[in-house]
Amino acid sequence: MHLATVAHPAGTSAALLDGGVWRALPAPDLSAFLAAGSPTTAGAVIDGAVPVLPLPAPRKVVCCGLNYADHIRETGRELPTHPTLFAKHADTLTGPADDLVLPKGLEVDWEAELAVVVGATLRRADRSAALAGIAGYTVANDVSVRDWQYRTLQWFQGKAWDATTPVGPVVVTPDELDPAEGVEVICRVNGEQVQRDSTRTLVFDPADLLAYISSFTVLRPGDLVLTGTPGGIGAAREPRRFLADGDVLETEVPGIGTLRNTVRFTD
Amino acid sequence: MHLATVAHPAGTSAALLDGGVWRALPAPDLSAFLAAGSPTTAGAVIDGAVPVLPLPAPRKVVCCGLNYADHIRETGRELPTHPTLFAKHADTLTGPADDLVLPKGLEVDWEAELAVVVGATLRRADRSAALAGIAGYTVANDVSVRDWQYRTLQWFQGKAWDATTPVGPVVVTPDELDPAEGVEVICRVNGEQVQRDSTRTLVFDPADLLAYISSFTVLRPGDLVLTGTPGGIGAAREPRRFLADGDVLETEVPGIGTLRNTVRFTD
Repeated sequence: MHLATVAHPAGTSAALLDGGVWRALPAPDLSAFLAAGSPTTAGAVIDGAVPVLPLPAPRKVVCCGLNYADHIRETGRELPTHPTLFAKHADTLTGPADDLVLPKGLEVDWEAELAVVVGATLRRADRSAALAGIAGYTVANDVSVRDWQYRTLQWFQGKAWDATTPVGPVVVTPDELDPAEGVEVICRVNGEQVQRDSTRTLVFDPADLLAYISSFTVLRPGDLVLTGTPGGIGAAREPRRFLADGDVLETEVPGIGTLRNTVRFTD
Repeated sequence: MHLATVAHPAGTSAALLDGGVWRALPAPDLSAFLAAGSPTTAGAVIDGAVPVLPLPAPRKVVCCGLNYADHIRETGRELPTHPTLFAKHADTLTGPADDLVLPKGLEVDWEAELAVVVGATLRRADRSAALAGIAGYTVANDVSVRDWQYRTLQWFQGKAWDATTPVGPVVVTPDELDPAEGVEVICRVNGEQVQRDSTRTLVFDPADLLAYISSFTVLRPGDLVLTGTPGGIGAAREPRRFLADGDVLETEVPGIGTLRNTVRFTD
């Protein structure tokens, strides 16, 4: 199934794709739908439906850094024994076609990622419970302000700028997509491919991450876990390369879809 | 004013201390009261009121590390040019008298802190707006699982264990307490003082922190900012010292009150 939050002329709705049309699910968005735990029973066709940020209100957004072997090598580090985790906020997220608005003068970089949507309450879950607790997968770009990220030892201030992490356009259920089999994670800047790798090379797969996080904090339906980015980020290039005003950032996972966001620098 | 969330035989309520008795404010807790922005008009006396976690539902909990000159020196670092920030979740917080329940075998350490309660919506606030946007101050202990904190470069997994950061017992409004003048932050383990310092030595004061955070993300009424811990943590001692099962951790800021939490290790 392909699930989404769609905008339509009268508001927003959780929705299910059915033969090329979006049908309403009984909630204003996927965050509310997953939290309610209602059965996935589709209602009326929604005319003029456009997918927007699928999860506007996750209580937790947990991100994994350094999870693709080649990206770890480009940062000059050893393969990790534990996942490197940090948190974002719901405010950090933005929709699949939204502009990324930031003050000019920042070193803004891309990080294409597969994101996992939690579908159950998980606490001290083993791998099997974690795998069964996955509602689906979506696409994210952990857009990072590198100069702020590296001002201090903790990355948070480079990772938590409001409305800079695009997510969507849909959430695909696990019966249709298996990251263990390998799904491609692709990033393009103005049409030029800058990242491409397969989730087969993840050091910690989605079930590993959910189980590990749940060992110290509860995960709930609608929470979001970003699985890390492959090699090819701008900060690791020679010379270093960052996003410019007007650049079009595309983030694609075949089988899910493509985020297309334009960078807009403000004074 | 002293504000709190109090438990009473019929539930919980936001409350105002008035001549030694707690009077009801029109919300079930201080998070809801601050979010509603209602005037602080006290109602009926609440019999049997006991302060609990004052802010059960902050949307953001942002913490500053390395903010007291002496604590920075004990970690062997230079004085910072920017605050080191990381995030916790509402789930990480617990009440002023609650047990701290953790699996046995962890290196559990103390970090007494002054915490700032946001009272206004702040985005790109200057120091003056940030100062005016402070609802009050409370006490927190950023209890840290050191072995998990240092498993990776990012501290999050040692800082975000559910129900391990006690907060409270009350929120004192800025007219009664001025960290710039200096308030003491004290930590005791089984009655032995292990930390004591004055907020006069903060590198980044509460207004600095709120203004800085608001440069990249919005802060809202009821959000919580922890200002960092003074020297004296267990991990920096020779030999290193961590909390044991049954240890009583007291965290005090004179003028606000004392948290008293007992460590309980589980299998």
